[in-house]
Amino acid sequence: MRFHAQVDVTHRPGIADPQGATVERALPALGWTNVSKVAVAKSIRLVIDAADEVEARSQIDDMCRRFLTNPVLESFTVTISELTPSGADA
Amino acid sequence: MRFHAQVDVTHRPGIADPQGATVERALPALGWTNVSKVAVAKSIRLVIDAADEVEARSQIDDMCRRFLTNPVLESFTVTISELTPSGADA
Repeated sequence: MRFHAQVDVTHRPGIADPQGATVERALPALGWTNVSKVAVAKSIRLVIDAADEVEARSQIDDMCRRFLTNPVLESFTVTISELTPSGADA
Repeated sequence: MRFHAQVDVTHRPGIADPQGATVERALPALGWTNVSKVAVAKSIRLVIDAADEVEARSQIDDMCRRFLTNPVLESFTVTISELTPSGADA
């Protein structure tokens, strides 16, 4: 079975987010004064072949911890959806 | 009213994604041979004060087109949810 996965990688609480802070500081100068708590993060999309969703999720967790994210600085959430055969090449 | 918004910024079709391509090339060497179509993108989270959800979405679309994204290279999707008063400081 083939699954589509989206991994949202965010900074752990307390970890500096200079890109988000810079965006937030710039917004009032552009006329938008009603925006706060800006955070800029990373997202990873991929397609994975696995026997079932549990196996896919387990492998993605492993990939995130060992390779895709820095677990000291970042946390991640994984969203998985099954690709239908007609959507396999989408 | 206060809203939480998540903006997912992705590459437009045909635009090179070197970070995603590099991750995809590295995965087999680490033992993961069943992953394809890796794409690395950006996500922006923010809190916005607006009269209603329509106004919030309109302003965020404007911010994305003029400041947060490069419309030539990137497309974006916006997800908005209302913050309850108890969750306003979350």
